[in-house]
Amino acid sequence: MSSPETKPLRIAIAGLGTVGVGVMRLLETNRDLIAARAGRAIEVVAVSARERTKQRGVDIAALAWEDDMTALGARDEVDVVVELVGGSDGPALALSRAALAGGKGLVTANKAMIAHHGLELAEAAEGAGVPLKFEAAVAGGIPVVKGLREGTSANALTRVYGILNGTCNYILSEMEQTGADFGETLAEAQALGYAEADPTFDIEGVDAAHKLAILAAIGFGARIDFAAVHTVGIVQVRAADIAQADALGFVIRLIAEADVQEEADGPRLLQRVRPCLVAKDHPLAPVDGPTNAVVAEGNFSGRLLFQGAGAGDGPTASAVVADLIDIARSFERGDIGAPFSMPVAQLAALPPAQAGGRTERTYLRFTVRDRPGVLAEITAAMRDADVSIESLIQKGRMHDGGEVLVAMVTHEGPEAHIARALELLEGSDSLTGDPLVLPILPA
Amino acid sequence: MSSPETKPLRIAIAGLGTVGVGVMRLLETNRDLIAARAGRAIEVVAVSARERTKQRGVDIAALAWEDDMTALGARDEVDVVVELVGGSDGPALALSRAALAGGKGLVTANKAMIAHHGLELAEAAEGAGVPLKFEAAVAGGIPVVKGLREGTSANALTRVYGILNGTCNYILSEMEQTGADFGETLAEAQALGYAEADPTFDIEGVDAAHKLAILAAIGFGARIDFAAVHTVGIVQVRAADIAQADALGFVIRLIAEADVQEEADGPRLLQRVRPCLVAKDHPLAPVDGPTNAVVAEGNFSGRLLFQGAGAGDGPTASAVVADLIDIARSFERGDIGAPFSMPVAQLAALPPAQAGGRTERTYLRFTVRDRPGVLAEITAAMRDADVSIESLIQKGRMHDGGEVLVAMVTHEGPEAHIARALELLEGSDSLTGDPLVLPILPA
Repeated sequence: MSSPETKPLRIAIAGLGTVGVGVMRLLETNRDLIAARAGRAIEVVAVSARERTKQRGVDIAALAWEDDMTALGARDEVDVVVELVGGSDGPALALSRAALAGGKGLVTANKAMIAHHGLELAEAAEGAGVPLKFEAAVAGGIPVVKGLREGTSANALTRVYGILNGTCNYILSEMEQTGADFGETLAEAQALGYAEADPTFDIEGVDAAHKLAILAAIGFGARIDFAAVHTVGIVQVRAADIAQADALGFVIRLIAEADVQEEADGPRLLQRVRPCLVAKDHPLAPVDGPTNAVVAEGNFSGRLLFQGAGAGDGPTASAVVADLIDIARSFERGDIGAPFSMPVAQLAALPPAQAGGRTERTYLRFTVRDRPGVLAEITAAMRDADVSIESLIQKGRMHDGGEVLVAMVTHEGPEAHIARALELLEGSDSLTGDPLVLPILPA
Repeated sequence: MSSPETKPLRIAIAGLGTVGVGVMRLLETNRDLIAARAGRAIEVVAVSARERTKQRGVDIAALAWEDDMTALGARDEVDVVVELVGGSDGPALALSRAALAGGKGLVTANKAMIAHHGLELAEAAEGAGVPLKFEAAVAGGIPVVKGLREGTSANALTRVYGILNGTCNYILSEMEQTGADFGETLAEAQALGYAEADPTFDIEGVDAAHKLAILAAIGFGARIDFAAVHTVGIVQVRAADIAQADALGFVIRLIAEADVQEEADGPRLLQRVRPCLVAKDHPLAPVDGPTNAVVAEGNFSGRLLFQGAGAGDGPTASAVVADLIDIARSFERGDIGAPFSMPVAQLAALPPAQAGGRTERTYLRFTVRDRPGVLAEITAAMRDADVSIESLIQKGRMHDGGEVLVAMVTHEGPEAHIARALELLEGSDSLTGDPLVLPILPA
């Protein structure tokens, strides 16, 4: 602070979609503020995108241009490369490797790339003594990577969980409001721009799994292990489930959750993305629309909640530029610590925990034929598998098919017992479809 | 990162109350984790407190001891002084000045000192090129100083507000749950340790005002101006107000709020601490008990919420040690930016806005004699002052005094009109006590 750095931080942006343009707009709109906070100007000096001449509402005529984005990583005048191309591999990864190899800092919003290649990139950054930052990769504008990396840094975390996919949260909370079914609500979300034309990564939980794997690595000091995330999407959730959950005092949210538990052979990391029932008085229950929220529970901090816009060009640009300001404040005058909070070499290789090894309360929904004895058959299976039922609702005919809905909440018990009960019912002629099993998020 | 610093960060702790002991326990419990994240060990080397021999549950026998805590700031082996003594002036301030003058970093949990002397201390830290950090001074374990200083650093904030006093929030949410009145609930809070024996600073809003002044300075890039905070406490809030608010769809919370608005002569900073009605679907409404929560609204990030434990030795120690880890990561190898996000010399001296110059919706409660014409008198005053009533509840006799409660919510209108209406009613024989005026927190 005694000898302020006055040379601007010069950045190159790869990718001029809505986020890239958002970053340029933000840097322009808040220019003076950013210079005051960063201690120096942040200047875009070079860009690369698919088309040079496309109308974007920002003027790139005066900036250096590269047709091949990888070349941005080799430009002498660039201090930091901002990768906003997306995709876990391909050009984004090639550029990121080139930038770090060229001694540039790297800022990226690319959750898939960090989930798959974050450790390799962090090692490269640590080796080169340059910053790698990816706040925008998780939960849009919410500073939750910083929150876990720095805010809760003094804590051993017991659990990290939250709502990490705005598309799913929009769909589930809309279904709650309107009573409409999944397909209809998805179509509406697509029309409104809350869901993509191909929504697979969102609705199947893959996007949330990418983000969870990143948060788990930072929060638990563990090597990132995206492949170990157990992922269930929201496609099976029916309007009737949301109505039953409501009657029982819950909402349904897609919850990404990670914890470390001591097992016989040492600590294991459990990472799951699943639709869960969330009690209405839980801090995540009121999180609706495309909002994201993350809860971190530390052994000294207690429970912390971070909430905000999970996507959008403004919030994402806010996170990208916050990373740039952190870099401007420190880069070339020291460092700002390891990308994953501790050096990659010190991250623990935690083996994945078996899904099914925990105890939890569970919501079970069966669709069954409307005939005598069905309820006895289901409850007998529960008894035989040692599943204790806390509450049960049988609901009259759905549609005109003579189909009846049976929903229940169990007392806390081993997940394996639930699986056993479902095995006992497998192939039963009474069931008209696959049962739905949703865990109840612990308080 | 390429040349990790392996020398421990050596700290001196002044004050061994619950927070000081909490910091020592945390550093011990999470020792390995902290060393991995900080890149080096954090070691307590010296302490000072009132009594050396008191039983505290932590062993200080091996540590250097100073009877005069100010001397900690001059000890050669100390890198950072942690000030946990409290009080805006006196020994805490003398020590803080001595530490910075001695080239030590300073970490403090002292909101009163930062609210009153933060700029002087920040200037000293900037001049000496040493860190000054005070995460624990605001909202306990919630990383909200970091959230505003770094998380939203790319944004011009439009508004910062939240629940910054756990004692008041505990009392108000207990009153809501139990229907008990203020005095009774305060006594219970004192018995449970949620309120101090002398609760004045908490219940009169002074504590929240200290914290708000700090957040406003960081969030708006303004010189800290504690004296300009308009502060109203919660003593006047009755159980009946909470019941009326509930009937109208609100809860009552002590809200600290700051914004900057462009007025005729330039931008002005408005800082207020007041009990407010909060709509039940607002993210701050479910915040109950001693929890704190802060909302920051940025021009790109949108609305961000940070929530968690606002006090307690564990959460406060978590914040203190997070600051120490930040310092260990960077100190002596560069700096970590200005304490108030931008250098003191660049903070704007924003004149305070007049309270009363905004428009808002308002809750008004009158206690009146139970006789004809009273309602006509009140509503006529509203009409004459151009106050538009949105809803009104008249409630039958309270207690046995023949006293009747009239509560109303106005449409959005100038605060000055409300003041005018109250002037018109001043001295009226119909009123049995001072009216209560509570703003309704904008969505």
